[in-house]
Amino acid sequence: MVDAVQIDSRKFDCSIAATLDAIGDRWTLLILRDLFKGVRRFEDLQKDLGIARNLLSNRLNKLISHSIVIRVPYQERPTRYEYRLTSKGLDLSPSLVALMHWGDTWCITDGPPTVLVHQECNTPLEHSVNCPSCSEAVPAKSIRSQVGPGGR
Amino acid sequence: MVDAVQIDSRKFDCSIAATLDAIGDRWTLLILRDLFKGVRRFEDLQKDLGIARNLLSNRLNKLISHSIVIRVPYQERPTRYEYRLTSKGLDLSPSLVALMHWGDTWCITDGPPTVLVHQECNTPLEHSVNCPSCSEAVPAKSIRSQVGPGGR
Repeated sequence: MVDAVQIDSRKFDCSIAATLDAIGDRWTLLILRDLFKGVRRFEDLQKDLGIARNLLSNRLNKLISHSIVIRVPYQERPTRYEYRLTSKGLDLSPSLVALMHWGDTWCITDGPPTVLVHQECNTPLEHSVNCPSCSEAVPAKSIRSQVGPGGR
Repeated sequence: MVDAVQIDSRKFDCSIAATLDAIGDRWTLLILRDLFKGVRRFEDLQKDLGIARNLLSNRLNKLISHSIVIRVPYQERPTRYEYRLTSKGLDLSPSLVALMHWGDTWCITDGPPTVLVHQECNTPLEHSVNCPSCSEAVPAKSIRSQVGPGGR
């Protein structure tokens, strides 16, 4: 089953549209969140999310077709598989961190349900948009869009 | 019209789920992208996205109900309105920057269609997940989830 409204990302000169084409539905993002947390097996994902098996299977196959996830055998006789993030999948972590921090700030009233920490020192992580030239964090109001090399 | 599959974010102890509840469909993210670019009027949004009027109206109302967008009059007789991001809306910019950079890296073949630059110096922006204690960028493999103050 797919979203009722499909958007053809090729119509948009925009990487956000292309990104949404690959990961832009809610279940997909929640599955990715679980894979990042280390939940990797079909049954565990199904239980953790309370998602219907056909939907989970559909979303995992879509993630595989986009090379975001690979299916890897973890057991023989019978062969059983788990799902792992590829480099392309792991590279989504800053986006998920940013979305999660926003939810912590604006959508949650009882404090963050989950805190992401640096494994080495247990410090809660931050994220930021930076200017490498000015070496400073850049607020939304100082961001400007300009046509890039792949723009029309 | 809403997505065919609705997920009740209250079932999930997770700010990503809460975030998706507010902005988690493709049109909504594309509308936000346009508002960030400065496209603020109904007709302009409709033209730029090629979205049906009822869908645009539905999504804008949802963004208003989540206090992400406000409707502000820009003309009298007849009164005409434009849509502006609130502080809560503007705070989504790091998430959109991160999603866009991921799309630039992994989904686009002809180079980025749009480049986000620092208004003051025209330098393309970067984004990162950082550890404030170690003062370093943190890769996905060094991120760990732990239960936060609002966790079950």
